Amino acid sequence: MSTTGTSATTASNLTAPTKFLEANGEQYAYRRFGQGPGHPILLLQHFMGTLDNWDYAVTNPLASGREVILFDNAGIGRSSGKVPQTIAGMSQHALTFLDGLGLKNCDVLGFSLGGMVAQQMVRERPSIFRRMILVGTAPRGGKDIMHLEKPGLSKYLHDPKLQGYAVLSKIFFAATKTSREAGEAFIGRLIERKDDLDPPSGPEVAANQMAAFREWEQSAGERFADLKSIRQPTLVVNGVHDEMIPVSNSYSLAENLPNAVLLVYPDSGHGSLFQFHESFTRHVTAFLASDSASAAF
Amino acid sequence: MSTTGTSATTASNLTAPTKFLEANGEQYAYRRFGQGPGHPILLLQHFMGTLDNWDYAVTNPLASGREVILFDNAGIGRSSGKVPQTIAGMSQHALTFLDGLGLKNCDVLGFSLGGMVAQQMVRERPSIFRRMILVGTAPRGGKDIMHLEKPGLSKYLHDPKLQGYAVLSKIFFAATKTSREAGEAFIGRLIERKDDLDPPSGPEVAANQMAAFREWEQSAGERFADLKSIRQPTLVVNGVHDEMIPVSNSYSLAENLPNAVLLVYPDSGHGSLFQFHESFTRHVTAFLASDSASAAF
Repeated sequence: MSTTGTSATTASNLTAPTKFLEANGEQYAYRRFGQGPGHPILLLQHFMGTLDNWDYAVTNPLASGREVILFDNAGIGRSSGKVPQTIAGMSQHALTFLDGLGLKNCDVLGFSLGGMVAQQMVRERPSIFRRMILVGTAPRGGKDIMHLEKPGLSKYLHDPKLQGYAVLSKIFFAATKTSREAGEAFIGRLIERKDDLDPPSGPEVAANQMAAFREWEQSAGERFADLKSIRQPTLVVNGVHDEMIPVSNSYSLAENLPNAVLLVYPDSGHGSLFQFHESFTRHVTAFLASDSASAAF
Repeated sequence: MSTTGTSATTASNLTAPTKFLEANGEQYAYRRFGQGPGHPILLLQHFMGTLDNWDYAVTNPLASGREVILFDNAGIGRSSGKVPQTIAGMSQHALTFLDGLGLKNCDVLGFSLGGMVAQQMVRERPSIFRRMILVGTAPRGGKDIMHLEKPGLSKYLHDPKLQGYAVLSKIFFAATKTSREAGEAFIGRLIERKDDLDPPSGPEVAANQMAAFREWEQSAGERFADLKSIRQPTLVVNGVHDEMIPVSNSYSLAENLPNAVLLVYPDSGHGSLFQFHESFTRHVTAFLASDSASAAF
């Protein structure tokens, strides 16, 4: 099913074909679908996530108003190359990919690891990006970023009964009935796609991305100073019970970015965007529809 | 212009007549206007604020879909009685007022001091209240609540050049050009109403309300335990640069209320709802329109 080219052929991550772009000696796997009056939006994925980890309940409502571009960074899924051990290295690949597509102006939504890459990209090439959405992520110098050895997470990661996506229904969601049910529904949506799938990420991906988290936790000089130069209107979103990247990191983003609205969901963890996909996509759509200088929408 | 009765005669706080309700030996001044399919909403006011401190840019969009009820608590404006020195005392008067109106089910929006009274009312009489909106406020046991002696606030409160409402354009807004301009616009709207005005609050009001803040800062037993029993879907809103009741108090509300969405605005202070009145009323309208068990909207 893989094809090359940049035109959107379908507007769902259930069916959108995986495409490949050659740029700077690498081959990047991506999907591009949707259309409408909005700016194209680049979606940047979480730890170990591939193209197949994007919940269509999130991507498809966005694709009804604009092109959505999903992207495997170097060494992920069917993209060539090695997974960088720094966020800066991942940002370089993503910028090379955008340049290869010829995209000169777009919005960006980064989830978790992807939110760190989004911040780095916006700082390095501010002219490309119009508006930014940061979900379940942290600024450089953030606290308690992806410490999977914590008991609240490791008990699920080392549970032999939880295989594949099943672990996500635990670690992305809060320990309540409603959140767990949302987790099951999320997994149910992910496994609907049967063809043209990425290979899952393995231990080397995990190790290199984990190294990037550890580097991102370090802050040289004034803490959060990096954020002060980001002028893009930003929407920061988190679940209040996020154990993977605690909500205090979203507070730091909102307090130190010059122009960010903060939206925090109850009864949810790292995957708040998947749990509250209707609310999330409604707010994101309203945020992206605004041309105001202010992030308020 | 004062009349009695409970029917709405106009849908703007620019022109709504002040009415009076006798209940339990007191006379309460209020305004009630607007109509539509929504539940009536009670608005509870800030430190020293009267009926005339409600910005019509906030009240009127809400009144286009429901009845809006503004209320002078005991000893404020043209209401009789003494200003209580506790939030619990203010809550008792507000519940007496609601009972006098015969309201058995409504929503409530509390700003600053009013948000504390709203929390107390919802805890005491949960059956009356459907949904709650808390703006620029703090839970019992909150931190740094209304310490007007802080340099960042006292410099405006003791500036002889700032008279009347002018001080609000400083202390309710952030020290940026855009926020200051929003403050000027806010004051401009407040002074549009020329007739049927409340007398401004004096030093005794200030002293008694300040005593209530000091009492509210105290926490007996487990901090924030009061919040755990509040089941109402809640929307918590604040400006990120609020100096009067810092945003960390809104974090505590969102983290400890079982079912609260948090929305934080950039470039704004205590009066974020007045600065971003279009966004604020749009979000509040969407939140109130929801009948979901979840606060997410």
